Amino acid sequence: MDSRIPVAVLAATGSVGQRFVQLLDGHPWFEVVGLTGSDRAVGQPYGKACRWILADPMPDWAAEMVVLPTLPGDVEARLAFSALPADIARQVEPSFAQAGLGVFSNASAHRAEEDVPLLLPEVNPDHAALVEKQRQKRGWTGCIVTNPNCTSTGLTVALKPLQQAFGVKRAFVVSLQALSGAGYPGVASLDIIDNVIPYVRDEEAKVEWEPRKMLGSLENGSVRLADVIFSAHTNRVAVSDGHLVVASLEFEHRPDLEQVASALRAYTAPPVSCDLPSAPRPVLVLRDEPDRPQPRLDRMTGKGMTTVVGRLRPDPLFDVKMAVLSHNTIRGAAGGSIYNAELLVRMGLVG
Amino acid sequence: MDSRIPVAVLAATGSVGQRFVQLLDGHPWFEVVGLTGSDRAVGQPYGKACRWILADPMPDWAAEMVVLPTLPGDVEARLAFSALPADIARQVEPSFAQAGLGVFSNASAHRAEEDVPLLLPEVNPDHAALVEKQRQKRGWTGCIVTNPNCTSTGLTVALKPLQQAFGVKRAFVVSLQALSGAGYPGVASLDIIDNVIPYVRDEEAKVEWEPRKMLGSLENGSVRLADVIFSAHTNRVAVSDGHLVVASLEFEHRPDLEQVASALRAYTAPPVSCDLPSAPRPVLVLRDEPDRPQPRLDRMTGKGMTTVVGRLRPDPLFDVKMAVLSHNTIRGAAGGSIYNAELLVRMGLVG
Amino acid sequence: MDSRIPVAVLAATGSVGQRFVQLLDGHPWFEVVGLTGSDRAVGQPYGKACRWILADPMPDWAAEMVVLPTLPGDVEARLAFSALPADIARQVEPSFAQAGLGVFSNASAHRAEEDVPLLLPEVNPDHAALVEKQRQKRGWTGCIVTNPNCTSTGLTVALKPLQQAFGVKRAFVVSLQALSGAGYPGVASLDIIDNVIPYVRDEEAKVEWEPRKMLGSLENGSVRLADVIFSAHTNRVAVSDGHLVVASLEFEHRPDLEQVASALRAYTAPPVSCDLPSAPRPVLVLRDEPDRPQPRLDRMTGKGMTTVVGRLRPDPLFDVKMAVLSHNTIRGAAGGSIYNAELLVRMGLVG
Amino acid sequence: MDSRIPVAVLAATGSVGQRFVQLLDGHPWFEVVGLTGSDRAVGQPYGKACRWILADPMPDWAAEMVVLPTLPGDVEARLAFSALPADIARQVEPSFAQAGLGVFSNASAHRAEEDVPLLLPEVNPDHAALVEKQRQKRGWTGCIVTNPNCTSTGLTVALKPLQQAFGVKRAFVVSLQALSGAGYPGVASLDIIDNVIPYVRDEEAKVEWEPRKMLGSLENGSVRLADVIFSAHTNRVAVSDGHLVVASLEFEHRPDLEQVASALRAYTAPPVSCDLPSAPRPVLVLRDEPDRPQPRLDRMTGKGMTTVVGRLRPDPLFDVKMAVLSHNTIRGAAGGSIYNAELLVRMGLVG
Repeated sequence: MDSRIPVAVLAATGSVGQRFVQLLDGHPWFEVVGLTGSDRAVGQPYGKACRWILADPMPDWAAEMVVLPTLPGDVEARLAFSALPADIARQVEPSFAQAGLGVFSNASAHRAEEDVPLLLPEVNPDHAALVEKQRQKRGWTGCIVTNPNCTSTGLTVALKPLQQAFGVKRAFVVSLQALSGAGYPGVASLDIIDNVIPYVRDEEAKVEWEPRKMLGSLENGSVRLADVIFSAHTNRVAVSDGHLVVASLEFEHRPDLEQVASALRAYTAPPVSCDLPSAPRPVLVLRDEPDRPQPRLDRMTGKGMTTVVGRLRPDPLFDVKMAVLSHNTIRGAAGGSIYNAELLVRMGLVG
Repeated sequence: MDSRIPVAVLAATGSVGQRFVQLLDGHPWFEVVGLTGSDRAVGQPYGKACRWILADPMPDWAAEMVVLPTLPGDVEARLAFSALPADIARQVEPSFAQAGLGVFSNASAHRAEEDVPLLLPEVNPDHAALVEKQRQKRGWTGCIVTNPNCTSTGLTVALKPLQQAFGVKRAFVVSLQALSGAGYPGVASLDIIDNVIPYVRDEEAKVEWEPRKMLGSLENGSVRLADVIFSAHTNRVAVSDGHLVVASLEFEHRPDLEQVASALRAYTAPPVSCDLPSAPRPVLVLRDEPDRPQPRLDRMTGKGMTTVVGRLRPDPLFDVKMAVLSHNTIRGAAGGSIYNAELLVRMGLVG
Repeated sequence: MDSRIPVAVLAATGSVGQRFVQLLDGHPWFEVVGLTGSDRAVGQPYGKACRWILADPMPDWAAEMVVLPTLPGDVEARLAFSALPADIARQVEPSFAQAGLGVFSNASAHRAEEDVPLLLPEVNPDHAALVEKQRQKRGWTGCIVTNPNCTSTGLTVALKPLQQAFGVKRAFVVSLQALSGAGYPGVASLDIIDNVIPYVRDEEAKVEWEPRKMLGSLENGSVRLADVIFSAHTNRVAVSDGHLVVASLEFEHRPDLEQVASALRAYTAPPVSCDLPSAPRPVLVLRDEPDRPQPRLDRMTGKGMTTVVGRLRPDPLFDVKMAVLSHNTIRGAAGGSIYNAELLVRMGLVG
Repeated sequence: MDSRIPVAVLAATGSVGQRFVQLLDGHPWFEVVGLTGSDRAVGQPYGKACRWILADPMPDWAAEMVVLPTLPGDVEARLAFSALPADIARQVEPSFAQAGLGVFSNASAHRAEEDVPLLLPEVNPDHAALVEKQRQKRGWTGCIVTNPNCTSTGLTVALKPLQQAFGVKRAFVVSLQALSGAGYPGVASLDIIDNVIPYVRDEEAKVEWEPRKMLGSLENGSVRLADVIFSAHTNRVAVSDGHLVVASLEFEHRPDLEQVASALRAYTAPPVSCDLPSAPRPVLVLRDEPDRPQPRLDRMTGKGMTTVVGRLRPDPLFDVKMAVLSHNTIRGAAGGSIYNAELLVRMGLVG
């Protein structure tokens, strides 16, 4: 145990922060030594300050930890997992990187920056190399590594093998997103009972851009965006966890359905990321039933890290229709950040 | 009252049948004289045979009516509103037309037949003329008139003014459909709680074809399908009533958003159908809020007959994104059939 | 129209405030001349300041009204309907009464005060006389009149005829309460999806006490609490509107089920309150089906003002089991306050 | 593995049958050798015949098993777990007992019979001795052992320590029951969206009687019913799994809340049942938060076998109010039957 890397969770009381605490419980490489929260929470035991909304009980070690302010000087850790809101992340995460910590951020604040990796270890682990450029440019010894928006995540994992095999040109994507994506308290119950909301603030722009960076290639130390055009409609539905995305895809080299299925089934994570502690096992599942994936039945596939694809069928306008499911607070948020941290430890870039 | 046209409701005990009974209560032109049901229900008072699932109470006159078998000889009516399932409708509806009744059918069985109108009075009232061809060809004095699938309905109403003004070339459409669309008992509660189902049986083919017939032109007594290509993904969500469709549209003559909004706002039903008892008032509402239309808040607009459009915004792949809401058992089913019957009465084709 | 009484709605932007605006639209006796809101809303048009969550659209006259501060000097009205939270109501409502307004309050702040009527016009209209004592004691010309908590409301209406006929001694009551009872945003969707919450803050004490005041008798200008002992468990469920209460009742004079049914069916409001504009028509409905009342099907009975009882059956411990449904934001909140105001106008006590 | 006892699941395709399959996967003592189903399913692989509705995937061994008819001659097992509906169980279970199998039944058919144990191993393991009387009387070598209704289960576990310590005299209990209790397809989604149903067929009589048998004492080979009077109201709510019961209790020897809490906290299963493979660990959890237990957060406590109590507070009519949660298809159905079988194996009565 002594040899585990000390880590902190920033904004640990919110819905993503709680997932970090849950997923880091018993982690073989990381040991949580600090939990930070807002002014209201600072100084209280986490067990009191946090309204725990997960079904698994809060770990005892967490309940007893006293909540710290979100300041680098107060946190004795080498890595920080950030569940901060974007506006605060923009200010605070650089100060942690400046203080030498590897920051693994779930916030959107820095995703678009040229020298910040937007990373899915099973998709683009090579992009982790951007942290060296980042250190040079910013003059810090820590780093900021981001994971994508929860809706971009599953979509990008599902597109990766298809892009490799056939080249993706255009994609229509429509999301049916879970409530936990909006945090806690998030969506009011009166807004979603017997209802859907055809709007998720700021989401469509992210879904139309983030996959292009992750599917892009690293050339001369920079990411060249993939030449894919996305059109996204994002919607909120009465589901607790699990974002479903339906997609119509057009390819450079039009495959038949059999070839698409084979490419999805054959995909594995690169050697550097395939056996990390949080690696999805398997990366992708392709289901044959006409009515799957479904959030309630499929979101916990591979402990919530696996991307589940289904409903593969021809598209009258483009080439292929399909549905993609990904757990939005595990693979699409806390689990993704932790997987990223494992990758950078493996690569010797942090730790 | 004496002068009202006697009508029957076929399969009156189901969810669409109940809507027929509700919407025909106090109708100025039609008087319900017969309610038919399955063998199990025949001979019982409707109030006993029917598990009423609507919030408004069952009309007293209906509760006391004895359920009849679904046979032309048993029903003394001039018009029949059909909520029959497709497979039974295929057999039974022709026998009613043969017996001289105007059949206004919510079933999919005959929608694709060349001499059967697929009708939305605010969209294609001229297609009603097909019934004359139908009578010649089939040698009956009644007729079969169909209304489209509940998901096609709102979509087609919203597309009509845009097709007129700009020509619609291609449309991606994704539905989030209400539970009542599956009838009663329909979807099991365990299948939809904390869940969505990315599949509605047989639905996508209907949504990709039906709007083409309704947006088509009547040439030499036949409908020429509109040259629009549709790609549809249909999904079931935890909503009681109200189908939401999000759409990305490509036009012949690319309009700006302002022009699209103007075309939607300016649209009115043709003179022949605009002031019928069930005519939507107005046909279309365009909402400006970023998060509307929503099923719970907007489905009853215009007593459930109005189509509500919103979220008009540019599309990175095609031209325009939007969201469309339509009440699936009122405008999209029973109310639509009744509106159709009113049109044919007005045109002197039945009654 | 000129002769209508000018009224204001205090805290008009919340969920109960919106119901006031909706129910006062087109009211025959009252004309809304002022809508008040929090500092954030003051000065904005109501249509902008208010996130309208009702399915019927916001009335146009309301949308254009500029939101006022909640101060007597700013509101030119003779009556004020209060949707204020209890802590603010405690401070602010007396200032309106001092300024000469009749305040009809949905807040709990003053319900327990000896000289403040806790009023259901179909139950205890005679308690309205307390306002004269109130005026003497407090030296003001206005008054404060309260309506009970939304859970107490339906329960008390259902108990009234039984208390009259048989004397109620003890009552076990368990509520399944709707989300709108918690206001907006109120209950977080993540707290209620696939869940119930066996707790509604401060609710049980109200339900155990308020019916005793309303069922009590006015003696020498004071209310003598009814000798009924209540035990209440209050729970939150995933229902938008409509509080269901199941109850086991013990009587002084044990009736059989037939007698209980007769007493419920025969009950009418006293002459002074039975034909007021908002009077429930009828006061009570007793349903025979084994599975009614249900919130979604029965809450709008009598435009949401009727109390619906059902599931009458013997109780192994006490005498009778039953279930009671009441619309919590109509009969149990805004509609109740308006009905109270109508009563006091009719009695010449305000106006 | 060879030494595991061969067992069958009767009616394995339904919702409780699936739980049996899931919970028996990897069981240390039992090996599933047969799955039976209805005529429609017989002869098909279980993976095809069964619409699996659990989130954990169907075990591979089960998917490949061919579904058998529910006849003793077709099933090569020593024990049978029955998820049969009551009317079929009444006919079929005796034939399995006659054939020498130990039948562990979740059906209500035989619960009330004098020589059939109604068993919760953490409550009344001594009642298992009734099987000897049963064998004598019925002349068979197998046996029928029942577990209680899912609502009675948690309630009885929570009452056991209180009855031991203080004597329970009277209990008011109101359930908020999950959808899975009604089987699959069970409750129609249109009946429960935005709704509760104050009725569960035949349930109240079970809840008012079954705990009396389990809390009763074995005297001269017969169970003497406990002298507790129950009054139950049973309701269906929009929850997937987990029955919540709120209860008001009156005791022989009135304890204070502290004593009630201590009795609940101190309770452990008897030595014979406390360390069986399916024993709840712990039997009871008492939570201190004002708003727990909640189905979504607490149902999986102790792998779904633990009973969770909370909201302990004084009752104005009786002595104590509390809330009890139990997983209805694990502790309250399949898990309970399996725990019973383990007990009888341990006692040498079957196996």
